[in-house]
Amino acid sequence: MFTEAVRTRFSDTDALGHINNAMVPVWFEGARDPIFRLFMPDLDLSSWHLILARMDVNFHAEMYYGKDTEVKTHIGRIGHSSFDVYQEVWQEGVKKASGTAVMVHYHNRDKRSEPIPDVIKGQLSEHLIDMLED
Amino acid sequence: MFTEAVRTRFSDTDALGHINNAMVPVWFEGARDPIFRLFMPDLDLSSWHLILARMDVNFHAEMYYGKDTEVKTHIGRIGHSSFDVYQEVWQEGVKKASGTAVMVHYHNRDKRSEPIPDVIKGQLSEHLIDMLED
Amino acid sequence: MFTEAVRTRFSDTDALGHINNAMVPVWFEGARDPIFRLFMPDLDLSSWHLILARMDVNFHAEMYYGKDTEVKTHIGRIGHSSFDVYQEVWQEGVKKASGTAVMVHYHNRDKRSEPIPDVIKGQLSEHLIDMLED
Amino acid sequence: MFTEAVRTRFSDTDALGHINNAMVPVWFEGARDPIFRLFMPDLDLSSWHLILARMDVNFHAEMYYGKDTEVKTHIGRIGHSSFDVYQEVWQEGVKKASGTAVMVHYHNRDKRSEPIPDVIKGQLSEHLIDMLED
Repeated sequence: MFTEAVRTRFSDTDALGHINNAMVPVWFEGARDPIFRLFMPDLDLSSWHLILARMDVNFHAEMYYGKDTEVKTHIGRIGHSSFDVYQEVWQEGVKKASGTAVMVHYHNRDKRSEPIPDVIKGQLSEHLIDMLED
Repeated sequence: MFTEAVRTRFSDTDALGHINNAMVPVWFEGARDPIFRLFMPDLDLSSWHLILARMDVNFHAEMYYGKDTEVKTHIGRIGHSSFDVYQEVWQEGVKKASGTAVMVHYHNRDKRSEPIPDVIKGQLSEHLIDMLED
Repeated sequence: MFTEAVRTRFSDTDALGHINNAMVPVWFEGARDPIFRLFMPDLDLSSWHLILARMDVNFHAEMYYGKDTEVKTHIGRIGHSSFDVYQEVWQEGVKKASGTAVMVHYHNRDKRSEPIPDVIKGQLSEHLIDMLED
Repeated sequence: MFTEAVRTRFSDTDALGHINNAMVPVWFEGARDPIFRLFMPDLDLSSWHLILARMDVNFHAEMYYGKDTEVKTHIGRIGHSSFDVYQEVWQEGVKKASGTAVMVHYHNRDKRSEPIPDVIKGQLSEHLIDMLED
């Protein structure tokens, strides 16, 4: 599991006085950085080879500005050329949102998916979600 | 079906040269305005009673800056106190992304869901997706 | 003058119930598209040669969600290799915000500013702000 | 001076491969949190009394994704009912952007500015920029 402390910002709120739902995909993509680094250690944008095929987010409770906020990031599934990232937003001991991103290992020039190298599969598997702990 | 023309912005792009995936929930929420107006005709923020319970987005193809862009919005399901909004992003005749938002009719002060009034159910049903046309 | 109708979105609001101030630079950059097209007719991202050197925004009054919104874009100054874009946000006949962006014609590969071609200077000058009308 | 480490996100980039300019006002507003807390210790959104009257940003150099990023926040001027916040973005020892926000102490119900209490003036003055160090 990777954990990132997120700083909530006034501009993240909406007129209902909570964090706007559209921030969660932004926080989740930000918290996938350590996973991006497994594929591209220097985050070299000129040879990026991960794309997002699908995401979902479930909103469990209202998120508040000014509260300690954490995003927890797990690997949910490792396939041949794609894998699932399962993430949660927590505030003060409460799970506020959760969701899964389906990432594809992708060859940008050839416009096709590629097998995930075994060494990276091994690294991803160290972060596989333990269903018992959840 | 509701259709909204979206203006892509330079700031919507990311370093891969496409529209960043996190814009799609923003566009989709924006394009749900006519549905918000069924519940709150003046978009009165002081008595808002719709919340988002869940969303998912499938990314079918890369979205580009500077291309004519449309968001198409349908109703996918009408339940007792919740309903599904099914939406698509189109650019130049190609479906680029699609997704479903689960909206709940919610009483903000009492913090509980409420039945959707029949008159609004009727209005929503006029926008039910026709599976044949899809 | 260029005029763009902007669709306010629920996600643009903040907890004070107004449009968050950080949206104005986003709207202004979006509304500079017709100026970008003078330099890069196809908005070709692979040979972009305009950069932002400075921006300022003055906030005159609260901006509201759900109100008809327009961004008006003028040219404020045309220099050798840079020019000023002066922009305003209007809602229902009231000027809500205004600001100036200093754009530089820039050669991305050589990392240096370049003279603005005379033909583009002529096109820009058609949109010079008329101080009398302001 | 207040210092905040900012996590750059992939979604902060734009098609030029740098951090988009519109992120700087977002980062700056986020980094004004400790100043907000001088006026509203609990960041209580129901009685907020600071508004932004003006902001400017100067862009000195390209900002990159994946680099250690800091926002430094100083007080630039303390007036009767308003004050200036001067802020800078730094990456790896280089000042990338700087700007000033003019904040007004404001009574939201009465819609008028209010004098800044002396005790807060004292706290603000502890963060006055030292022109010599700059």
